[in-house]
Order: sequence, then C-alpha cells, then structure tokens
Amino acid sequence: MLFKQMTIIGVGLIGGSLGLIAKQKKLVEQVVGYGRRRGMLQKAVGLSAIVRYFLSLPKAIEEADLIVLATPIGTFEKIGREMLPYLKKGVVVTDVGSVKGRWVEKMESILSPQAFFVGGHPVAGREKSGVEAARAELFQGSRCLLTPTDQTDSSALKKVTTLWEKAGANVSLMDPFDHDQILGAVSHLPHLAAYALMETLAHPKIARKKPVQYSAGGLRDFTRIAASSPEMWRDIFLSNKEVMVEMIDLFQETVEKIKKKILDEDGEGLFEIFDRAKEIRQKDV
Amino acid sequence: MLFKQMTIIGVGLIGGSLGLIAKQKKLVEQVVGYGRRRGMLQKAVGLSAIVRYFLSLPKAIEEADLIVLATPIGTFEKIGREMLPYLKKGVVVTDVGSVKGRWVEKMESILSPQAFFVGGHPVAGREKSGVEAARAELFQGSRCLLTPTDQTDSSALKKVTTLWEKAGANVSLMDPFDHDQILGAVSHLPHLAAYALMETLAHPKIARKKPVQYSAGGLRDFTRIAASSPEMWRDIFLSNKEVMVEMIDLFQETVEKIKKKILDEDGEGLFEIFDRAKEIRQKDV
Repeated sequence: MLFKQMTIIGVGLIGGSLGLIAKQKKLVEQVVGYGRRRGMLQKAVGLSAIVRYFLSLPKAIEEADLIVLATPIGTFEKIGREMLPYLKKGVVVTDVGSVKGRWVEKMESILSPQAFFVGGHPVAGREKSGVEAARAELFQGSRCLLTPTDQTDSSALKKVTTLWEKAGANVSLMDPFDHDQILGAVSHLPHLAAYALMETLAHPKIARKKPVQYSAGGLRDFTRIAASSPEMWRDIFLSNKEVMVEMIDLFQETVEKIKKKILDEDGEGLFEIFDRAKEIRQKDV
Repeated sequence: MLFKQMTIIGVGLIGGSLGLIAKQKKLVEQVVGYGRRRGMLQKAVGLSAIVRYFLSLPKAIEEADLIVLATPIGTFEKIGREMLPYLKKGVVVTDVGSVKGRWVEKMESILSPQAFFVGGHPVAGREKSGVEAARAELFQGSRCLLTPTDQTDSSALKKVTTLWEKAGANVSLMDPFDHDQILGAVSHLPHLAAYALMETLAHPKIARKKPVQYSAGGLRDFTRIAASSPEMWRDIFLSNKEVMVEMIDLFQETVEKIKKKILDEDGEGLFEIFDRAKEIRQKDV
C-alpha cells in the first residue's frame, strides 16, 4: 500500500480511472471522492471508482494522506485555499491538470509547508469525459508527466511516481514550464488548429455549400480532435495563455509563408515544407 | 463490358486499383498502362493492375475507348495536347484529379469534339502511394465525385458513372467549381493546416525542446494527415490556388479571433467556438 486514504477531488474520467486501478492493484487502502454533484458521486460508487464520497471538502480530505486534484485547473487555487486548514500534516497533494508552469508554483505557495505538492499530468485519452467513461486500463502504456521543482519533497515525488507506474503509465519528469512549452506544441496548438479549422468551416462563406457532408479522411481526423471537452480546452488555453499566444503567432507566420508560396506558385518551396512534415512523422512519432 | 480498352495514364495507387477492379469485375476487356518508368509499369503488370503497357503515348491510346488520366494534375494539359492527334473518335477521357474547376474547362477545350471528357475525383485513401499499394477494394464504399458541365456528353457521363459504381464507389455529381470549394473546405484546407502545424513544430523556437517525442493523440492525427504525398499536395494547392488563398484568409481570421479571445481571457467566447466544433462533428460527419 502506497497510501491509506486517497481522496479524489472531481471524480470524472481521469479521477475515476485512477480510483479503479488503485483499488484493483491495491495501491491505496481506501478511495474517497469529493464533488459537488451527489448523483455523479453515487454513480462513481456504483462503478467502484470510489468506495465513499463526501459533499463537504473538509470531511473528504481530513483523513487523506493523498489528495488528487482532478477538477478543471481554474478551480485549483480556490480548492487549495479551502483545504488548507484541514490538511493532515505531510499529506501528498498531486493534480492531473494539462497545464503546469505557474500553477505548480501557486499550489506550492498555497499548500506548503503543511502539504507536499507534486504536479502531475497523465496524458491519457480524453475524447470522452465523465466517470461513466472511466476504466482501470486507461493509463496502461500511456505517458504521465510529473513536474517537480526545487521545492518538491523527494519522498512525495517518489510515492506519486510509483502510484502512476503501478497504474501502468510511463513516468517522465520535467520542469513545469518546459512541460507547458512541450504540451503547447504537441497538444494545445494542434487542438487550437483543429478548433480554428472547424470554426472556419462554419463560416457562412464556406458553410453555404454544405461541404461537411463530403467529408474526406483529412477532415475526420480534425473532427475527432475537435470533439474533445469544450470546458477542458477553454481552461487549458486560458491556463497556458502566454505559451499559446506565442505559438499561435508562429503558426500564423507559417500559414502566411505557405500562402505566399501558393500565390507565387513556388512548387519547390511547397514541396520542401510538405516533405519535411512527412519526415517529422517518420523520425519522431 | 463497358469499354473495350481502358488505358490508364499513370499507373499508381488510384490508376492501379482501378485496373485491378476493372479486371476483377470484367468492366473492360483490356487494361493498358502508359507511363514513363518501365520498371514501374512492369511491376503493374506483375500485380495484374494492367495487362500490358506502352512507353509511347500514341501507341498506348490509339485503340482506347476509355482513357483515365491518373498523373498529377499539372501534367493533364500537356498530355491532352500530345494525345489529341491519336485519339479514336468518340473516346471517353476521364481523370482522377483532386481539383476540377478550370481544369475541366481546359480539358474540354483541348479534347472536344474528338473525345468526350468527364471530370472525376475518386475520394479514396491516399496515405500510401504507388502501384504496390493498389488494391481492388480501394473504392468499395468510398465516394466518387463526377463533375459534368453543359458540354458533357450524357452517354459518356453515364458510362463513367457506371464504371465507378461497379468499382464500389458512391457517385455524386456536382459542378466542377463547387467541387473545388467543397474539397477545398473538407480536404485541402485541413491538409494545409496540418502541414502548417508540422512546419511550426519544426521552427527552432519550438523544436529545441524536442516536443515531438512527447506526442499526444492530438498531434498523431495531424502527422497522419501530413504524411501524404508531398508531390500530390503541392499540385493540389497550386491547382486550386484561388480557392485556397481565400480559405487560408478565412482560416487566419479565425485563428486570430481565437487568439484574441485567449488574450482577453474570454472563456465564454472560447467555449462557444469549441462547443460549435463538437456539434459540427455530431451533426454532419
């Protein structure tokens, strides 16, 4: 047993899946849920993602030696301040948010020295959401990024690492700000491009021809991306604002460069770009 | 038998697959190939995509009552002019190019009244290329767009329609210029966005963190799109230049609009856009 009581704040797809695997692999003695909607928490109990729940945050966390923040990032600060007076000394607090950077700094400054905070980001399938979609295998073979700082307690980091490894994930450690740059590039910017594409197709100038009924392979991949949770992506873009704006500017520059090559009928220049794109895939992904 | 001799100009993935299914379903008596590389044509014979080949264009087409242009769009005009003196009166010429519009007008003006031109575009999987990837089932359940004009011979259109239907495709008819708007929206613009994204990730400012090794689901869909044939996409973008430039402008406006909402921390505005994107998928695709 790594922990006696794990309290999951926000029992959705990720929190619920962690609860399921923690129980199945006996990683913790007891999994407790906290949330605001009783119906959802009851459903989570029914699915065995948690064994019991509280609608009171102090009650949910006062006995916990591990707290997992699995609510939208925008709620972390408020929840952190609310929990603070009731935390057991030395409790490990981790999160599953898609943005780290200054959020890690903020949580550290709110919670320490009472609790040990470890920033975490399981990069797991997110097309569906809600505890109904939770499953014990969700993290099997997936990547989990942990983002320690020089404030991070090494024993807390070790325990959280073991938790995710036992859940089936491949854990990598990285700086919280590097994390936001890297995920900005491989996840947030692609989602932004997909959303922008779908929004462009909804423009009256294009939509009047009803093109989507003729959807080809290219578009289907985009619609899959753009079908993710709008709430989650709103929060990610706003939480990673500075990085996103910088990357969007680079993206726009690149689109402009390609457009200019089309206008100039610069076939060689286009070929070079398209060929490079193919190589990136073959080399790295 | 719909035709006695079908000559395929350019025996790659699409031409080769059409040859295979035409033979299998006995849609034509004889499938002949034309190309410039003997080795490739020999391979096509070996795979039964064609029964024989010519390296001389006049020889390849002089007996044909159906000619299928399956080379890059940029070559159509030159091949059309070269074929003209040798065409059998009343031969049906069709193509498999991804752009129609003015290319259809051009081919009609070059070939008529000697031949009957019917613009065609089988929308089939194009991730792989080359005759090695050809298979008789490629068009099964796929869409084939034919683009008649008021010049189109109705009996030629009927025969080409039947050919694609027997090959397993669902045939739709549309105006050649509408075709380019529609495919521009559901195929060309998505590919442009994917290429622009990959090129952005190759920018030194981003690439120095080596993000691609942490590739998540979002990026993998893009890399799949961007792995298509660079030659083909260069030709498509240049052939559909006017439509592309217009759509790129709309796309950039949209990216800028989303960026502004991020900068303004307009969560409600972002949610609206992301939610609409989800709806487009659920409704139409």
